[in-house]
Amino acid sequence: MTNTKRIALVVGVGPGLGTATARRLHADGYRVAVASRNAERLAGLVQELGGFAVSIDATDPASVEAGVAAVEEAVGPIHTVVWNVGGGVFGTLETVDTDGLDLALGTNTRGLFVLAKRLLPQMAERGDGALVITGATASLRGKPFTTAFAAGKAAQRSLAQSLAREWGPKGIHVALVIVDGMVDLPNTRARMPDRAAESFLSPDGFAATVSFLLSQARNAWTFELDLRPHVEAW
Amino acid sequence: MTNTKRIALVVGVGPGLGTATARRLHADGYRVAVASRNAERLAGLVQELGGFAVSIDATDPASVEAGVAAVEEAVGPIHTVVWNVGGGVFGTLETVDTDGLDLALGTNTRGLFVLAKRLLPQMAERGDGALVITGATASLRGKPFTTAFAAGKAAQRSLAQSLAREWGPKGIHVALVIVDGMVDLPNTRARMPDRAAESFLSPDGFAATVSFLLSQARNAWTFELDLRPHVEAW
Amino acid sequence: MTNTKRIALVVGVGPGLGTATARRLHADGYRVAVASRNAERLAGLVQELGGFAVSIDATDPASVEAGVAAVEEAVGPIHTVVWNVGGGVFGTLETVDTDGLDLALGTNTRGLFVLAKRLLPQMAERGDGALVITGATASLRGKPFTTAFAAGKAAQRSLAQSLAREWGPKGIHVALVIVDGMVDLPNTRARMPDRAAESFLSPDGFAATVSFLLSQARNAWTFELDLRPHVEAW
Amino acid sequence: MTNTKRIALVVGVGPGLGTATARRLHADGYRVAVASRNAERLAGLVQELGGFAVSIDATDPASVEAGVAAVEEAVGPIHTVVWNVGGGVFGTLETVDTDGLDLALGTNTRGLFVLAKRLLPQMAERGDGALVITGATASLRGKPFTTAFAAGKAAQRSLAQSLAREWGPKGIHVALVIVDGMVDLPNTRARMPDRAAESFLSPDGFAATVSFLLSQARNAWTFELDLRPHVEAW
Repeated sequence: MTNTKRIALVVGVGPGLGTATARRLHADGYRVAVASRNAERLAGLVQELGGFAVSIDATDPASVEAGVAAVEEAVGPIHTVVWNVGGGVFGTLETVDTDGLDLALGTNTRGLFVLAKRLLPQMAERGDGALVITGATASLRGKPFTTAFAAGKAAQRSLAQSLAREWGPKGIHVALVIVDGMVDLPNTRARMPDRAAESFLSPDGFAATVSFLLSQARNAWTFELDLRPHVEAW
Repeated sequence: MTNTKRIALVVGVGPGLGTATARRLHADGYRVAVASRNAERLAGLVQELGGFAVSIDATDPASVEAGVAAVEEAVGPIHTVVWNVGGGVFGTLETVDTDGLDLALGTNTRGLFVLAKRLLPQMAERGDGALVITGATASLRGKPFTTAFAAGKAAQRSLAQSLAREWGPKGIHVALVIVDGMVDLPNTRARMPDRAAESFLSPDGFAATVSFLLSQARNAWTFELDLRPHVEAW
Repeated sequence: MTNTKRIALVVGVGPGLGTATARRLHADGYRVAVASRNAERLAGLVQELGGFAVSIDATDPASVEAGVAAVEEAVGPIHTVVWNVGGGVFGTLETVDTDGLDLALGTNTRGLFVLAKRLLPQMAERGDGALVITGATASLRGKPFTTAFAAGKAAQRSLAQSLAREWGPKGIHVALVIVDGMVDLPNTRARMPDRAAESFLSPDGFAATVSFLLSQARNAWTFELDLRPHVEAW
Repeated sequence: MTNTKRIALVVGVGPGLGTATARRLHADGYRVAVASRNAERLAGLVQELGGFAVSIDATDPASVEAGVAAVEEAVGPIHTVVWNVGGGVFGTLETVDTDGLDLALGTNTRGLFVLAKRLLPQMAERGDGALVITGATASLRGKPFTTAFAAGKAAQRSLAQSLAREWGPKGIHVALVIVDGMVDLPNTRARMPDRAAESFLSPDGFAATVSFLLSQARNAWTFELDLRPHVEAW
């Protein structure tokens, strides 16, 4: 029965991790809604999955709330969110400006905070729900070239810990996937023609990991795991 | 065809995580060998799984090497090892003696080192293999009551990192599962009759996680993840 | 000769860590400028130290830049900054709103970013300078009650790492002091009359630590250290 | 009066960190006993400082206990210990053998455990004492080339945490200095004639840091700090 399917919302759907995750959750039996800054780009995916697309600008609380409301109205109550948002400007203190920092904090942390405030309490009321967040190596440390981006990712990881600790006992599974490596995308491959194929991180592998996290029974939940190609230096 | 099955060795098989993992790997299609200090206790499990049992004292390098050789001779080349060993004496500096420290270091770290030296190079020669290690919250920090145990677990985690970084690029998946919580065992339940059932960590959930790690394609491998009951305070 | 004294700016001067640090740096021979949201409150301290006070609202980039410019004009080029800012609203996801998160991110991270952009390049041009930042246990992890505050502190720590790694080789000493414990303040004592005196963290001890960090020769610099009363549980 | 001086024992005194620390503690007013595997090599230092030397093999509990007893008898009750021991064989899983691992665990962790059992309870009875331990970057993570060494250092750090948490409230200051960088030694310089002088870590800087840690009042103690040359990449 279609209307008993769990509803998943994937926020931040570009050609890589987000699309692979949306497909995987669809295959796993979820009704999948997808969001990106520009929902028009998701038309093909929506047609493929029979889902629903919405535009969400993660830096704008009103946009996050409107997007969630649109999904709820069109599809139903959201059981699972994959927060795959996290643009960020790379660069050093001298090359990144305050807007770049605001973008990193706004997409990775603030938008997630707004979404969590909107959805976690109602998930908890239903006694069930999940929030999986895409982190990065930069979640764990700041380097010169990630002066702004890593700050956003570190704040996101801290927020994810707070949420997991508060909402886990209420039945909401909050998890963070630390992506360590270059994601395998057509344009990334094109930019690095000499790089070995096996050195790219597989979007399908990421999606399989999200799928596994969502399958965990609540008496053995994972909060954090890392993910990298086997040849990655770390 | 039986002889094309992958062979897995689970070292440290008591009634909890080890047994659940052996059963799960059997269900996943592995031929499963099991080891504990006293192989006789594993007779029932061997009968159930049609496997092979061997006595291994992880604190004794000769015993580790003999155990591995016995499995190789009786079953064949080992593809996957789950190192679930890690006894340890709990107590403070004043109540734990040097033997207690040696036990923690010997089982968690030294036995693992001996096993890795024995098996990883030949796994790498075959281009494929896996080593999954059972860690604990004590892998991450030392507290007064874990003066000896945590030292062994911290050394084990460091060793696991070194092994993952060296042998990952050679095709061996090394992973560490940080178990955070009281494992659900009949005798644990009996000792804590008032504790809520949902507060115990599920051995089957642990085994499902090991199974997932072993299923990961090498372009998206996890090194470390945590695992806890949803109500656990952390 | 007064004009050869190094100039230090302490931002975030309340009755505790900031005041103790300003006094200590004065005793160490610095000319000390102090800043808080309301410079009028610092009149007594300015009189005591013969220094200079300026109002800085760390959440407002223009205010940070104007404050720095005012210090430069009135006192001279700034050699050392102690960033002791870091208000934040405590509470869970449900009790903290977006403004609370913005305050945590704005004071701990964004204001620091603006200040660093303004001052580090010119310190590097002079080949010498220092930036010491006040962190907290929340810099290291997020808990339910620190949903917003810890996010700001984690982003701050990441930013501090990026800055230390980039600007250390250029001669700027960036350091982070992780304050773990209740600061010893008259109003804190009054609120907790039954708490043992020795369980409070000493502002003078904090200031002595900042003084030590600033005394380190560049061939042995500390980036991060923790600080707590000896009886603190951690 | 000489006999009211605090007595410090520095264990692991070679030409670098240990000697610099012994000199600094002497200058700070301690009566200084020094220990290394071969006390004869310390004759010059003993003459210089008017101290006492003893042979201690950190891998041998009996030797640690005998060494401590000899210092107590010759000099008096020990107030402060600097554990600068930590030899270790560098190499990968294939090039390091079990003896190499035992050396890393034995010097960094087991010898320290034996010393702590011997001395911390009596320091606590006197209500005062300190134990400062020399860590390394390898204390924080395992890499292929530090397969054995990092395991020993990680176990040491965990043990140090357990000791600090247990004995801090009893008045014993336990601290860990994470040394990140190549120590400045004549033979190191000779081996790397092209390396810039400023890229070596200063033994005097290390000693100044130990001296500072020992000067901290107990209402603001540091457990862990890092130390590196300003140009070090990390």
